[in-house]
Amino acid sequence: MADRSRRFTATVVGATGYSGAEIVRLLASHPDVAVVRATSERRAGARLAQECPWLDTDLVLESFDPASVDTDVVFLCQSAGFGMKAAPLLVGRTRVIDLGADFRLKPAEAFQTWYGMEHACPDLLEEAVYGLTELADPRQIASARILANPGCYPTSAALALAPLAKAGMIAGTPVVDSKSGVSGAGRSKTDCDYLCAELSGGFRAYGVVGHRHTPEIEMAAGRHVRFTPHLLPFARGIHTTVHVPVEDGVDRAAILEAWRRAYAGRPFVAIQTEGWPSTKQVLGSNRCVLAADFDPRTGFATLVSVIDNLVKGAAGQAIQNMNLMLGLPEDAGLPRNGVWP
Amino acid sequence: MADRSRRFTATVVGATGYSGAEIVRLLASHPDVAVVRATSERRAGARLAQECPWLDTDLVLESFDPASVDTDVVFLCQSAGFGMKAAPLLVGRTRVIDLGADFRLKPAEAFQTWYGMEHACPDLLEEAVYGLTELADPRQIASARILANPGCYPTSAALALAPLAKAGMIAGTPVVDSKSGVSGAGRSKTDCDYLCAELSGGFRAYGVVGHRHTPEIEMAAGRHVRFTPHLLPFARGIHTTVHVPVEDGVDRAAILEAWRRAYAGRPFVAIQTEGWPSTKQVLGSNRCVLAADFDPRTGFATLVSVIDNLVKGAAGQAIQNMNLMLGLPEDAGLPRNGVWP
Amino acid sequence: MADRSRRFTATVVGATGYSGAEIVRLLASHPDVAVVRATSERRAGARLAQECPWLDTDLVLESFDPASVDTDVVFLCQSAGFGMKAAPLLVGRTRVIDLGADFRLKPAEAFQTWYGMEHACPDLLEEAVYGLTELADPRQIASARILANPGCYPTSAALALAPLAKAGMIAGTPVVDSKSGVSGAGRSKTDCDYLCAELSGGFRAYGVVGHRHTPEIEMAAGRHVRFTPHLLPFARGIHTTVHVPVEDGVDRAAILEAWRRAYAGRPFVAIQTEGWPSTKQVLGSNRCVLAADFDPRTGFATLVSVIDNLVKGAAGQAIQNMNLMLGLPEDAGLPRNGVWP
Amino acid sequence: MADRSRRFTATVVGATGYSGAEIVRLLASHPDVAVVRATSERRAGARLAQECPWLDTDLVLESFDPASVDTDVVFLCQSAGFGMKAAPLLVGRTRVIDLGADFRLKPAEAFQTWYGMEHACPDLLEEAVYGLTELADPRQIASARILANPGCYPTSAALALAPLAKAGMIAGTPVVDSKSGVSGAGRSKTDCDYLCAELSGGFRAYGVVGHRHTPEIEMAAGRHVRFTPHLLPFARGIHTTVHVPVEDGVDRAAILEAWRRAYAGRPFVAIQTEGWPSTKQVLGSNRCVLAADFDPRTGFATLVSVIDNLVKGAAGQAIQNMNLMLGLPEDAGLPRNGVWP
Repeated sequence: MADRSRRFTATVVGATGYSGAEIVRLLASHPDVAVVRATSERRAGARLAQECPWLDTDLVLESFDPASVDTDVVFLCQSAGFGMKAAPLLVGRTRVIDLGADFRLKPAEAFQTWYGMEHACPDLLEEAVYGLTELADPRQIASARILANPGCYPTSAALALAPLAKAGMIAGTPVVDSKSGVSGAGRSKTDCDYLCAELSGGFRAYGVVGHRHTPEIEMAAGRHVRFTPHLLPFARGIHTTVHVPVEDGVDRAAILEAWRRAYAGRPFVAIQTEGWPSTKQVLGSNRCVLAADFDPRTGFATLVSVIDNLVKGAAGQAIQNMNLMLGLPEDAGLPRNGVWP
Repeated sequence: MADRSRRFTATVVGATGYSGAEIVRLLASHPDVAVVRATSERRAGARLAQECPWLDTDLVLESFDPASVDTDVVFLCQSAGFGMKAAPLLVGRTRVIDLGADFRLKPAEAFQTWYGMEHACPDLLEEAVYGLTELADPRQIASARILANPGCYPTSAALALAPLAKAGMIAGTPVVDSKSGVSGAGRSKTDCDYLCAELSGGFRAYGVVGHRHTPEIEMAAGRHVRFTPHLLPFARGIHTTVHVPVEDGVDRAAILEAWRRAYAGRPFVAIQTEGWPSTKQVLGSNRCVLAADFDPRTGFATLVSVIDNLVKGAAGQAIQNMNLMLGLPEDAGLPRNGVWP
Repeated sequence: MADRSRRFTATVVGATGYSGAEIVRLLASHPDVAVVRATSERRAGARLAQECPWLDTDLVLESFDPASVDTDVVFLCQSAGFGMKAAPLLVGRTRVIDLGADFRLKPAEAFQTWYGMEHACPDLLEEAVYGLTELADPRQIASARILANPGCYPTSAALALAPLAKAGMIAGTPVVDSKSGVSGAGRSKTDCDYLCAELSGGFRAYGVVGHRHTPEIEMAAGRHVRFTPHLLPFARGIHTTVHVPVEDGVDRAAILEAWRRAYAGRPFVAIQTEGWPSTKQVLGSNRCVLAADFDPRTGFATLVSVIDNLVKGAAGQAIQNMNLMLGLPEDAGLPRNGVWP
Repeated sequence: MADRSRRFTATVVGATGYSGAEIVRLLASHPDVAVVRATSERRAGARLAQECPWLDTDLVLESFDPASVDTDVVFLCQSAGFGMKAAPLLVGRTRVIDLGADFRLKPAEAFQTWYGMEHACPDLLEEAVYGLTELADPRQIASARILANPGCYPTSAALALAPLAKAGMIAGTPVVDSKSGVSGAGRSKTDCDYLCAELSGGFRAYGVVGHRHTPEIEMAAGRHVRFTPHLLPFARGIHTTVHVPVEDGVDRAAILEAWRRAYAGRPFVAIQTEGWPSTKQVLGSNRCVLAADFDPRTGFATLVSVIDNLVKGAAGQAIQNMNLMLGLPEDAGLPRNGVWP
């Protein structure tokens, strides 16, 4: 709790949202990095533990003032449009990790196409490192001044697809059918669609065509994908099912082998070969669990990828990237075990 | 409650399982048909209301004795392998509706391939009418001596796909990604995989390749499909998402129009054009709700179909078929409104 | 669907809220009463089926205009403060059933104490009949011009407690520990406390002391009670556990006997003597299921009562009362079976 | 993962059950203690990670052989009847922590009364230390050879009640109305009552009178209590609501003060004074959160206590006790933050 005895310090901007609070939760057991500042525009002055009673912390919420940021790293946990305004005031003085979308799509025109706003700092966008940790160049992450933390759906889909794309195994448009817990929608929803009464005991699609995470997934697939998200009636977890036509000769064994090569020695990607993984296996954990099968009747492979959308899909991966940026072990302070049942 | 004042009588074989009990529930408010016999092998002699305390009924469970069936219609609510033994003893004396799988796949070799057992009565199989009500010939249903009630997944997928197949709109392998409430697994599961503790708050796939409902879906699609089912952490509802490459010129409007033509005047298929339907909209109801969008970047259409797996996916469709077999209005006794929230 | 061939007609004021929509759902299968008008202040002009896509109805929402109400009965489904303004404009021209709180507590001072507003029509309040159907005088309900439909918690608690109170069995303060599905909070909640993300997988108390339903429960208990409500992480159902010190000689058998005497011949109260009832047993049904045990070590009886808060706790009981007011069978159009699983 | 570089070693007996696996999960991030042996009678020879895929561990399951236990501490995670047979073979050679019920109730006659079996080692029972950590004498825990880890319900109830009992504030029989997630029922349930299909979306009581945790709660209350447990339709969390008549002059402030005195400086008991705690606040955490209010109309206080039944209610408290037994900081390796949302 604001333990200044640790070697490094961090600021969390937007600490009362789900991603920001999750960074505070996870760093509480980090051996080397302490959160010493937490900001909230709506609740500045309040104790963080009052706004987020699941956190045992003494932090008091501040207004975000870029000039006063004096920590080794700053996490920006705000929606699209915030990061590109804040980052230019911070880069160079501190390491910046943006959990929003502003630095994920290059060039600036691509960002504008999908997010409908002009980019405020195209040069910084070009410099930004896209931090899908296992797929990125670790030296680039290590030296990044501004790191774009990937979206939750793209993290789950890319870890399944990228090794197949790299190996030239994909023979047609991948269908990416994702199912997410509702925490992905954030804490500020005010219409009845997100009430427990309306969602509990039901399941539905949304953003069936044109979801903004589509181009991020396509970066990993190396081609267009058909992406559709759905809402699961609980808080945490993403299950992405990828149905992909594969080249002749590609079968289950070949896919598992491609994954094993891609993720050898990496602590947070596991390949499950018996049964099918539940999202709950990775609740609270930074792991992604992959599984696959091949259907000879249609020539499709079906890939499954599960993550905790707030950990590997947001706060955990941000800390994983931070670890590399600060020269720490990749897995420092990050849980591998899921909270089950 | 065993109200013999109604015009027709019914026997439910396997009344303590979810489908059988659902027939008892629904027929309780049917104006013309009364359940007068209910059987259970494990619990013969007990009151049905004790085994199924959600039912307000005086029925006492009997052992199944084909010779004693004296009702106008009999519903067989047992797993694969039961129907083909029982039906030959019943057909001709009563109208038989099999909610199991034994009369769905023709010819007998197809049944054997997918279910791994030899068919006991291939001639009756040939005679059986496949009762996906809106897609079948109503005269065939009306005169059927033995009716094969479709599987739950096939019902949801076929209602979405069949009109496109008939209109020649499908240009490649449909991906059928289905999500089902766990009541589909039945009431007799004894391994820990189906415990509330293990399933609640999580989501997972199963039977990713080779699920037995695949050939039933292919009957409607007119081609191979890539079918994968998943388990939702609640009891009722199926959400099927179909991603299908479509022919040039096919777009959302064309799909909606094909559906409208196919289902004009039918009480239990609705087309939703705003928002995306939740499975909960049809909880307890016999409706199937369809919705669609088209993705010009990939040339795919994405179709959504929601049903209550125990109603339109089992007991409700069985009663809908029974209505036609007995010359009653198609919607007699069947709810259209869902129990929401 | 606005079927004017039925004998009686009804107006639902506030038809897009959960109680109002539930009346529309239930009356769709009523043999004698049709909803022909539905109002909504926020959504007048829209189709009801668009606002409530679980309903298969052609009704178009109107603004509420007391002068234009021309139906046999009108259901007021609004929050406290609405009914006492609307009722004086309606009583005498139509039968009024208020699902809000305005006519439940007498005299006007009691209403003011608990609801913090002055009563607008104390005379009408005195005339109003409190419609906890099984506990009321049926002749009073039959002739009521203005009927106060009870609260959901009081319905569940009163059906358990009243027969014990009447029999002089209660020896000390009853502890009424209730657990309700979140649909009880209504459809208009906008703070994050009611988000699916915050409620799913958790359980908490609220209004621990001083909840407004306390005095209604005390009317049935004939004394003060210690009442605390809790929120269940799903939509429907109330489970009330009553722990009550009983007089010497009162045991489980005596309680069951008191209940049997009180509810003999009533279709919607059931006494379960094996196992303990789940709220899900009565999902979508108008039944209340009671069960009890006695603890000789402490001299307490523990009573359990489960209802569907939107049916027996609101819309269903309102229709049950309407049936009596219109001279119809008490159970006309009301389901007894629950939607399980 | 069997990290033998840590100072102390532990054996988990019954590692594939929920409590045993939770000890493995939690000790994975303990700085000083490593699990080096894990046993399972049914699955000896299998990898623990296969039986519990949420765990990232290399441990291979062994049969339990008391003679081969060579670790500093052993956790017995089995049901009643196991510990009293195993402990005599282990005490003296290793520190024994029994998560079962065998050493909780003294004298042996009390155990026999509630558990229906004769105690196998009454002397060891007399010696055993009851480890409700915050209420016990820390020196007794530190020196215990055999430690009885409390039941989950008693932990939640006792932390609320004991300070009031000690301060003489209780004026009558406490009503302890508890609600637990279904993981409390364990992983071996095979009847349909624990299926997700039957429990999801519902709530019910069980063991209404005579539950075996009653006498443990009474140890803290210093008098008889009326205890009733209920099943919540999700995996983790206990919410205990205690309704207790209090002596004249006792009010909310007095209760909060009694709690503050009792738990000053203790890391795992928190007192919440705004809002009411949800069980989800403590998911995966070792904290107990308390809250209270006083009802002057009835003279009752209502106390709320939430814990994670598998952490503070089982594995976490066992580790907390282990820490004291090994001379480590009480909170070593134990999370305070909950996994929310």
